Amino acid sequence: MANDSDMTAKDYYFDSYAHFGIHEEMLKDEVRTMSYRDSMYKNKHLFEGKVVLDVGCGTGILSMFAAKSGAKHVYGIDMSNIIVQAKQIVRDNGLEDKVTLIQGKMEEVQLPVDKVDIIISEWMGYFLLYESMLDTVLVARDKYLKEGGMIFPDKATMYIAGIEDAEYKDEKINYWDNVYGFDYSSIKQIAIKEPLVDTVNGDTVITDACAFKDIDILTVKKEDLTFTAPFKVTAGRNDYVHAFLCWFDIAFTHCHTPVTFSTGPHARYTHWKQTVFYTPSTLMVKAGDTMEGTIKCAPNQRNPRDLDIEIDFQLHGDQPSGPNHCEYKMS
Amino acid sequence: MANDSDMTAKDYYFDSYAHFGIHEEMLKDEVRTMSYRDSMYKNKHLFEGKVVLDVGCGTGILSMFAAKSGAKHVYGIDMSNIIVQAKQIVRDNGLEDKVTLIQGKMEEVQLPVDKVDIIISEWMGYFLLYESMLDTVLVARDKYLKEGGMIFPDKATMYIAGIEDAEYKDEKINYWDNVYGFDYSSIKQIAIKEPLVDTVNGDTVITDACAFKDIDILTVKKEDLTFTAPFKVTAGRNDYVHAFLCWFDIAFTHCHTPVTFSTGPHARYTHWKQTVFYTPSTLMVKAGDTMEGTIKCAPNQRNPRDLDIEIDFQLHGDQPSGPNHCEYKMS
Repeated sequence: MANDSDMTAKDYYFDSYAHFGIHEEMLKDEVRTMSYRDSMYKNKHLFEGKVVLDVGCGTGILSMFAAKSGAKHVYGIDMSNIIVQAKQIVRDNGLEDKVTLIQGKMEEVQLPVDKVDIIISEWMGYFLLYESMLDTVLVARDKYLKEGGMIFPDKATMYIAGIEDAEYKDEKINYWDNVYGFDYSSIKQIAIKEPLVDTVNGDTVITDACAFKDIDILTVKKEDLTFTAPFKVTAGRNDYVHAFLCWFDIAFTHCHTPVTFSTGPHARYTHWKQTVFYTPSTLMVKAGDTMEGTIKCAPNQRNPRDLDIEIDFQLHGDQPSGPNHCEYKMS
Repeated sequence: MANDSDMTAKDYYFDSYAHFGIHEEMLKDEVRTMSYRDSMYKNKHLFEGKVVLDVGCGTGILSMFAAKSGAKHVYGIDMSNIIVQAKQIVRDNGLEDKVTLIQGKMEEVQLPVDKVDIIISEWMGYFLLYESMLDTVLVARDKYLKEGGMIFPDKATMYIAGIEDAEYKDEKINYWDNVYGFDYSSIKQIAIKEPLVDTVNGDTVITDACAFKDIDILTVKKEDLTFTAPFKVTAGRNDYVHAFLCWFDIAFTHCHTPVTFSTGPHARYTHWKQTVFYTPSTLMVKAGDTMEGTIKCAPNQRNPRDLDIEIDFQLHGDQPSGPNHCEYKMS
């Protein structure tokens, strides 16, 4: 597994992204792809005769949805080599007159038009913001979107709740206490700081969900993505809290009837799953107890691709906790 | 997901490998880890008072097994930052007098000893040879292993068989014929060339298994890892063949009683799973029919981390096929 290649990370990125595996996973995520499809196919009145920009077009599926919805022309931008395949796919579907794909960075490419009517983009990462392309969408919006133009989707909401997760915490965190008879507890300290992207059963959620961050894609600024948000959740039953769980919902509010989807634990599986943040100690909660605090998100200073997340909270109830401070890093 | 970091691939490699996730997967692979453990704990007579070299030591688990088996001293080498954690783990287990870990490339580090008695290494990749560290083990062997020294493990055998796999082939290959109403068949041509690492149920195997490559780690040369090997398999029942399946077995032949493990479809799960090579056409076979040909493996000329694999074969039986030539690339 060792290698001494002098290929740059950029090459690596290009290469690995050109693998169709990640695109296969995204395409086969029907909750995701069919929401985008419905937002366009069921709203042709919005796309008829319009100029559309697809930010991070991948294999071109959203661009082709837009073209089939009556768009006058669709421009798709992607920096990855997957665009070579995407161009072939567009030709194979006879859409080369309607869909123009351009390889490059949004910040650098020059579109053949000054402005577009609609921006479409699937930019969401794990925990919404990890390795997300939202920054790129904002660049595209500020440079190309016509006054009064639309963005699909245009709203994202982030949620937090408390979960019971003893079994998996044992497997992921406490495992390191004894590895084939050896003390690996130094890794435990690292493991607990690493949020876990995984599917969580809805039954494990023992508090209500608190929407801690609303993002309006039409107006949000890059600075708004570094934030500290308050939250408060209330336990619905007597149980133990081992972790906080985060997820997000997405909405296309311009549609004739609502098109939305959730990546939450009570909704159908998506490839984004949910994100688990283990708390160092286990909390004993009674129905009606509240956990109140703040969640802070910021790109890591040294490596802006990484995301620093801090959760500060207190438990109010029969057995109140002192202040808890938890630090996490998605990398 | 776009990024313009100028981090080199080497940094990327170091960083990503330092993530404990991959090490967690390997440690939790009990077939793997307990085979290594048994090869040492049950053979202390071989390790007593010996100097041991662990090539690609990761979190240091094999080094610690060797120390606990009575080794006089163990040197562990790894180029990844995981070694920082490994050193802490060795200290936490009070083995710092017995185990010395050194970060660096095998080709470049200088051990404090001229020769070692035993080399231990878990170097195997998917399909045995993909991103494997065997080259590095051979460098270590030629530079450091004492005349008459031992290597753990010292034998690897690669197998091939024919499998029925209609359902999964539909999902992985034929899927591209119609993606939400669009023709994505250009990706199908790429998908079929990409071997699929996945677990395959033993019931799908419809031929016997042919051992096409034996590797004796004590004597193999780097050149031997580029090879063309003949194979012949015989169908055990009437069925359809959709793919060839490859896997490998590993043996520690110096042990008092045999320590071996298999990554085959009839054996217990390992993180190596098996590797599936879809044939472009589906073959109709009758019990007793044979498929005969050659399998060729070579590092890709442009990127030696990638593996080029070619399978040439003919079906002999009631409905014989003409010559089939299939090309694959693991990357």
